Amino acid sequence: MAVQTTGTSQPTAPTDSTAGVSLGPAVALSCRECGERLPLGPVFACAECFGPLEIAYELPGGDPEALRARIAAGPNSIWRYAPLLPVPADVTDRPGTNPGFTQLVKADNLARELGVTGSLHIKDDSGNPTHSFKDRVVAIAVEAAHAFGFTTLSCSSTGNLAGAVGAAAARAGFRSCVFIPHDLEQGKVVMAAVYGGELVGIEGNYDEVNRFCSELIGDPLGEGWGFVNVNLRPYYAEGSKTLAYEICEQLGWRLPDQLVVPIASGSQLTKIDKGLKELIAVGLVEDRPYRIFGAQAAGCSPVSRAYKEGHEVVRPVKPDTIAKSLAIGNPADGPYVLDIARRTGGSVEDVTDAQIVDAIKQLARTEGIFAETAGGVTVGVTRKLLESGELDPSLSTVVLNTGDGLKTLDAVAPTTGPTATIRPSLDAFRAAGLAS
Amino acid sequence: MAVQTTGTSQPTAPTDSTAGVSLGPAVALSCRECGERLPLGPVFACAECFGPLEIAYELPGGDPEALRARIAAGPNSIWRYAPLLPVPADVTDRPGTNPGFTQLVKADNLARELGVTGSLHIKDDSGNPTHSFKDRVVAIAVEAAHAFGFTTLSCSSTGNLAGAVGAAAARAGFRSCVFIPHDLEQGKVVMAAVYGGELVGIEGNYDEVNRFCSELIGDPLGEGWGFVNVNLRPYYAEGSKTLAYEICEQLGWRLPDQLVVPIASGSQLTKIDKGLKELIAVGLVEDRPYRIFGAQAAGCSPVSRAYKEGHEVVRPVKPDTIAKSLAIGNPADGPYVLDIARRTGGSVEDVTDAQIVDAIKQLARTEGIFAETAGGVTVGVTRKLLESGELDPSLSTVVLNTGDGLKTLDAVAPTTGPTATIRPSLDAFRAAGLAS
Repeated sequence: MAVQTTGTSQPTAPTDSTAGVSLGPAVALSCRECGERLPLGPVFACAECFGPLEIAYELPGGDPEALRARIAAGPNSIWRYAPLLPVPADVTDRPGTNPGFTQLVKADNLARELGVTGSLHIKDDSGNPTHSFKDRVVAIAVEAAHAFGFTTLSCSSTGNLAGAVGAAAARAGFRSCVFIPHDLEQGKVVMAAVYGGELVGIEGNYDEVNRFCSELIGDPLGEGWGFVNVNLRPYYAEGSKTLAYEICEQLGWRLPDQLVVPIASGSQLTKIDKGLKELIAVGLVEDRPYRIFGAQAAGCSPVSRAYKEGHEVVRPVKPDTIAKSLAIGNPADGPYVLDIARRTGGSVEDVTDAQIVDAIKQLARTEGIFAETAGGVTVGVTRKLLESGELDPSLSTVVLNTGDGLKTLDAVAPTTGPTATIRPSLDAFRAAGLAS
Repeated sequence: MAVQTTGTSQPTAPTDSTAGVSLGPAVALSCRECGERLPLGPVFACAECFGPLEIAYELPGGDPEALRARIAAGPNSIWRYAPLLPVPADVTDRPGTNPGFTQLVKADNLARELGVTGSLHIKDDSGNPTHSFKDRVVAIAVEAAHAFGFTTLSCSSTGNLAGAVGAAAARAGFRSCVFIPHDLEQGKVVMAAVYGGELVGIEGNYDEVNRFCSELIGDPLGEGWGFVNVNLRPYYAEGSKTLAYEICEQLGWRLPDQLVVPIASGSQLTKIDKGLKELIAVGLVEDRPYRIFGAQAAGCSPVSRAYKEGHEVVRPVKPDTIAKSLAIGNPADGPYVLDIARRTGGSVEDVTDAQIVDAIKQLARTEGIFAETAGGVTVGVTRKLLESGELDPSLSTVVLNTGDGLKTLDAVAPTTGPTATIRPSLDAFRAAGLAS
């Protein structure tokens, strides 16, 4: 029987078989507010209190060494962690983009410049198939879409997510239909369209695109549609846990002391915290404290402002920043982020657009990593938190870069160019003063 | 003592210690034309006959199973093949970009469209740190630069190589100075400059940039400079062997029956052949036939033309194609490519710019891989060779994608955009006819 909820515009499942759905260790949906449990299905809000739903698991027990060995023998992708994810055991038998297991770069050059005496690592998610962390979350959503019998993958997006959905749908054999504001930059439009799915420009801003998608999801027109970031959101969001798993495995199954994570909706940060707690629970890492720091752009810093003002709720803002992939003015998981930052002894900070550009260049110059603006936000906030003393330079720190500089060239283009332009002669080169 | 050769503009080594250089299994430089052997050093042309030099090895003997196990226990990068590369045993102890071990994608959707009944795989090198195969070759050149005591990394480039050198130099702690034509597209200039090295625009075309670099290399101004694609070329070129190693390992230590490889200078294709032969020699794969097919753009197809006309020499052409990363009109390794294609039972084919664009879109639509124009060339040639019957559809085939579509957006942008643009209403969506 289809899982039905009441009171909100929940879609019906396209098949009546969700009661028999098998998604590995996932056993139920659970309300983050009231704890109400529901069977696994394409629903995203609690029927009792309208709180957000998340996945509840029966995680593997027994000898952690056996689990560690099983993970080590797995593929070089997020699927090595299938025993901890809401995906069926045969997930690798189907075609998929197989994201994850990206490099954890030991950033000694950057550490030196920033005065870090402990260790500093960059988790570089530009190595994913479409060059952002969105490939992780979409890959999990694809498995849920399979399980619930959806035939079309969809989302609202201003960039990274559109590309990730288009690519994953193409590989996995779904139809896709993605909605974007009609006036996006050409590069993002091309990335969203090249995978051959339907791409619909909406005459309106991102908020209007979102509102349209919510209408569509409650209408018969949207039947059979899995919106990865709406009705598949509880599954989709779990993909961010894999960042936590990979960081710990790549550190030799150790928790870092400090993590710096970007905040858009805040979902990624909350799921990284969830992932770390799960690793402790199953015994893969030692149970000891870690601190999570959230990073925002000053031009869209509702969570940072709430943190600094000591509030528990987040007041929405109108975004105005070059960090467009983080420009969510009303972040759904903002209150949970505040809670995690306070509980773990971290904090939330923001940096200006000029500091974002500086940080992108500093990371490129020191480590050869060309980050998108979101990476400039986390590196810039890391620098600021070291200066203020909130980050301890003597500890181990991991900073996330969640995207690729090629997608946000405009951020650095005006101030990045040739050192010199010369005639093709040794005399001209000598005159330019560039010989070492 | 510095290795000196006579008769060509060879640079002197910056230190006098090249006789003691330790580069793993590499034991000498060997002339591909006359067989003359030289000690390892920063030289690129034979002192006897001016032929190109390549690396001679003492490859590991003994039990292939032991070597296989050693590789399997290695890192998820080209360094897992260190026993077969001209790099010191401690290569992973130094900071580097650690490229390679990119995905070999089983392309069942594309196979179905092309009528391939055997197996079809795409080796997707857009997953490398700067999103092209150039990260592989530069990583090996960096090790040679270390060994020979160079302090500046340099190259002439029109795009991918500049980014790869900039990033690798930043990570590994070299100064870099890269030369480009002054009128490149802004995106490529930004990618070349963002890593903070010197970037010099030369008032002239790519040929003039190259000529300038050759002058610089013979001048005291260039002392201490390692030009990755000139005086370090014998080392640099070996990086392409890792494509062969990875493909075979990812196929379960099996040779593919057929490979489709792009041709720019032709170096990559010749080194893939060398890599396959080495795997046979050390017993890692069974000794059985394979065919190598070369792929060019019609607008720069000197090797394809020579192949079809039955020539053994390659007549230079003036490139005019959107596949700029393959636009070398006078390919140095052209004659070797012809020899390999004929010896292995392959061939060389070319496709028009329109076919390249079609193929980029077909690969994106079927497999979710957004390739640069060079990937459009190999996929387009694959389709053409299947139609002509030169590629056997019942065998196993591997097609290389060596770069990333984000770097050549212009190729598809004019014909890639939204399916529809509508007002944010269900009525408008219904009228657009996109509901499934």
